[in-house]
Amino acid sequence: MSKSVITVSRQFGSGGRTIGRLLSERLGVPFYDKELVQQVADETGLDTAFIEEKGELSPSKSFFSFAVSQSIPYMNNGLSISDFLFCAQRQVILKLAEQPCVIVGRCADSILRDRADCFNVFIHADMAFRVDRIVRLYGESEKKPEQRLADKDKKRKIYYKHYTDREWGDANNYDMCLNSGKIGIEKCVELILDAVRN
Amino acid sequence: MSKSVITVSRQFGSGGRTIGRLLSERLGVPFYDKELVQQVADETGLDTAFIEEKGELSPSKSFFSFAVSQSIPYMNNGLSISDFLFCAQRQVILKLAEQPCVIVGRCADSILRDRADCFNVFIHADMAFRVDRIVRLYGESEKKPEQRLADKDKKRKIYYKHYTDREWGDANNYDMCLNSGKIGIEKCVELILDAVRN
Repeated sequence: MSKSVITVSRQFGSGGRTIGRLLSERLGVPFYDKELVQQVADETGLDTAFIEEKGELSPSKSFFSFAVSQSIPYMNNGLSISDFLFCAQRQVILKLAEQPCVIVGRCADSILRDRADCFNVFIHADMAFRVDRIVRLYGESEKKPEQRLADKDKKRKIYYKHYTDREWGDANNYDMCLNSGKIGIEKCVELILDAVRN
Repeated sequence: MSKSVITVSRQFGSGGRTIGRLLSERLGVPFYDKELVQQVADETGLDTAFIEEKGELSPSKSFFSFAVSQSIPYMNNGLSISDFLFCAQRQVILKLAEQPCVIVGRCADSILRDRADCFNVFIHADMAFRVDRIVRLYGESEKKPEQRLADKDKKRKIYYKHYTDREWGDANNYDMCLNSGKIGIEKCVELILDAVRN
């Protein structure tokens, strides 16, 4: 492939993760989403569940968890756990991106922004499409699906803004943004492949 | 084509207008950019040069021109000239979009947002690509090309925000956003055609 690394940012429920996985299968390159978590755990000694939760979402609204994350004088130069995790995750992403691969989320588009051989994708869809998709995939929960979507997107947006100083979902940050609800997940995969093989 | 109307929003110098024209040629449907101006002039009696200047840019910074545009008790229910022009332009766009076509700029994506058969595209590119392109196409001017680009984009952004209450360049407003500098203008045309024919 002419572009050796593809990053996929995505709204919750838009099918971005599925698109990333299909891209990696078609291109025969590794896929990193939750797969990245274990590597960060190995580097940092942090628990995988903690990394998965905090690795691309803004701190929880709970005052207690926020206070803890800010106040622990962590082993790494006094960084907060959030900042320490971001730095560790960044190092892992830079290392993984030495080989062709597909990386989902975790500000990878910004971390790799100076790489000319990196192709950055953003996947989004309207609320109705995403509601239908998360209910089918993850089932119902106490919280209404619209609220689950809004909460998760907001946390991703804040996390992205905090660590990159850019706007999540601003077209300028990506080479290709696609509305998976209108275009269809399979067609999104084809269009991205066509663009990166160009 | 399955999507009968394509709207193309674009950063100045990104090649969005060229992409729109090529799409219309390949699809054999009318292309409306400056072509729309004459129709708005016929509807409103306003001068074509005025419409071209004010039809998608925020009011000039000149206090005099701003004061004039706000204070003339225009024939149309006391609307300011800017608002009157937007309403007239909106009516023309709604009418044109009754037939398959390609429309560039003028908030057409927002005006036609409830149309399921409308496909909204945003074209952008990095500063170096756009500087090179506008200098080749339009030549040098007293103002530095970087400043010309920044000024025009800012005016389009303000105009769009004012009349649509949405953010210009936010991926959520479009079905497909493409970085023409990275993907190439011809490839952008192919990708959009592939998506709308889907």
